[in-house]
Amino acid sequence: MEILRTIYAEDMEDIATGGAILGTGGGGDPYVGKLMAQQAIRKYGPVQLIDIDQLPDDALVVPVCMMGAPTVMTEKLPQGDELINAFRALEKLLGRKIDAVLCGEAGGVNSTTPFVVASMAGLPLVDGDGMGRAYPELQMVTFSMHGVSATPMVLCDDKGNSLVLETVSNGWTERLARAATVEMGGSALLAFYSMSGATAKKAIVRGTLTLCAALGQTLREAKAAHVDPVAAIVDKLEAKVIFHGRVKDIDRRTVGGFARGTARFEGVEEWKGHDFRLDFQNEFLMAERDGKVLVTTPDLITLVEAESGLPVTADSLRYGLRLIALALPANPQWLTPAGIELVGPRYFKYDVDYTPFFTD
Amino acid sequence: MEILRTIYAEDMEDIATGGAILGTGGGGDPYVGKLMAQQAIRKYGPVQLIDIDQLPDDALVVPVCMMGAPTVMTEKLPQGDELINAFRALEKLLGRKIDAVLCGEAGGVNSTTPFVVASMAGLPLVDGDGMGRAYPELQMVTFSMHGVSATPMVLCDDKGNSLVLETVSNGWTERLARAATVEMGGSALLAFYSMSGATAKKAIVRGTLTLCAALGQTLREAKAAHVDPVAAIVDKLEAKVIFHGRVKDIDRRTVGGFARGTARFEGVEEWKGHDFRLDFQNEFLMAERDGKVLVTTPDLITLVEAESGLPVTADSLRYGLRLIALALPANPQWLTPAGIELVGPRYFKYDVDYTPFFTD
Repeated sequence: MEILRTIYAEDMEDIATGGAILGTGGGGDPYVGKLMAQQAIRKYGPVQLIDIDQLPDDALVVPVCMMGAPTVMTEKLPQGDELINAFRALEKLLGRKIDAVLCGEAGGVNSTTPFVVASMAGLPLVDGDGMGRAYPELQMVTFSMHGVSATPMVLCDDKGNSLVLETVSNGWTERLARAATVEMGGSALLAFYSMSGATAKKAIVRGTLTLCAALGQTLREAKAAHVDPVAAIVDKLEAKVIFHGRVKDIDRRTVGGFARGTARFEGVEEWKGHDFRLDFQNEFLMAERDGKVLVTTPDLITLVEAESGLPVTADSLRYGLRLIALALPANPQWLTPAGIELVGPRYFKYDVDYTPFFTD
Repeated sequence: MEILRTIYAEDMEDIATGGAILGTGGGGDPYVGKLMAQQAIRKYGPVQLIDIDQLPDDALVVPVCMMGAPTVMTEKLPQGDELINAFRALEKLLGRKIDAVLCGEAGGVNSTTPFVVASMAGLPLVDGDGMGRAYPELQMVTFSMHGVSATPMVLCDDKGNSLVLETVSNGWTERLARAATVEMGGSALLAFYSMSGATAKKAIVRGTLTLCAALGQTLREAKAAHVDPVAAIVDKLEAKVIFHGRVKDIDRRTVGGFARGTARFEGVEEWKGHDFRLDFQNEFLMAERDGKVLVTTPDLITLVEAESGLPVTADSLRYGLRLIALALPANPQWLTPAGIELVGPRYFKYDVDYTPFFTD
């Protein structure tokens, strides 16, 4: 098998930084996952990143994820054991050896959690994920659009409790797993969406872990070379700067296991005199400028510090912070009618249609 | 194997009536379960009721139950298929044929649900249960005091979703199963607490299904003979009449899947000028007369109609209803320190100690 790249503990820095950019303000802080992955890699060895085309069609591929409200995930540092427990329990249930680990969500903490399992299990990790970003609910993966069932799913907590779910739809899996996660104290570890190599080749968003690493590297090198880090990532991502301003108001609450809210900004420099508003449900999902909707999910909205280009999460927003907002194009799979139904603004109860921000 | 009694569809009437008396106001209306059991027995054949001592020590015994708020359980009539699905899924998981069905809770709807499974599976049903009454939470069974784990547990809903739970304690099983049940719409079907014949011989409350049948028969015969039905069941149960009055006030709400509240009564006849208060959490758990605590869980408190002796549930209480309150002695297993810890008044957040009402 041809290895795309071998990932050592020190490589996790760049991946976590890139994962936070694709986290679009949510997905949990990858700092936690980075520490877990580094610990696992130092103990169990590096991770072999592979292209999905390297796997035979009949290979068995399984994604792992952490589920929960980002604020809770950061407070309750999980152990690698809980992730590998969920993975091993699903393997036992499927009655077959798993051939490779997959990333469910390349944004936020879950850009790093699959490295923990790949290292501990000594299995290759596929370069790609099910979102190309972060999303708050577990049915919000490109896998859903290819008929892949989230179940059988194993969900473990840090106390030793576990659940196996078999459901009639991925929406029901989300509801039942969310209820269990809330009861378990706000975060849980999952192994789910088992699929064949053939299905994974169609269903995943390719190359997103390599993209995370490249984004982290870009920021690191820009810093070393004293060049504008924001310009460097805008260039790397075909992104657009949509605002530059200071946080003037934040309304944030945790509802049913989600961090929901709104942040308002007042413009600085070229955006002086303008205002900007971000709505989030774990992730930034809608951006309005001067009262007009500008960017909505599935296109990505991310916030970075003007000086460092480092990404900022919705829960670390605070009054006075000076930030640059970027819009990034969504993976084309999300721009289909099925994709818009699954993750478009109306699903999140925003009363607007998806209007493409990026037009050729 | 010696059969204690063969239960036909028409026998379910008496059992459901007796189950409602042991339901102590909660446990769900056995009318729903009676219909399910009668339907199953007519289609799959009668149920053989056996004494637990008829089973070998190495037999595998599994209780089945319905879980949920009584009001919801009555509205969402379940199908026998959902119960047998949970039972079969647990059997598959245990990797061994189940030898007999057990009743988890002889009060309310669950006095009848095991008949559905015993009939459909063609297995004997053990005469006994895990409570000798009804209780609102699933760890509140005598099985818990004998070290029997509720898990592995299978929980199914009416939509085709299922859950397998493995937990670190029966309290955690309750929490996670309750969260799933609420998410599933308020009711679910369970197979759990699998145990050996040897354990069941120590852990169950014996003879409670026969008692249900005898109570129903007593009421039926009293009606036919025009004798006082309340006196007849008082005699049968070694019960005591603790009040006779009219409902004057009801405070009832559904919280976290439970029907909680308080009912107040004003006395009639020999109790004229006195007042009476019942606190319930699905079941009646504490009775106060003239401002003094009189009877608490684990002793049983049940309400019956003065004319017919028929039991009345907490959710059917309404203003003006004229009822007789009875106190019934708890099974001795509940009167141990472990029993009081599991189901005594302090567990339910009532600020009183258990004081025995029945003293020799």
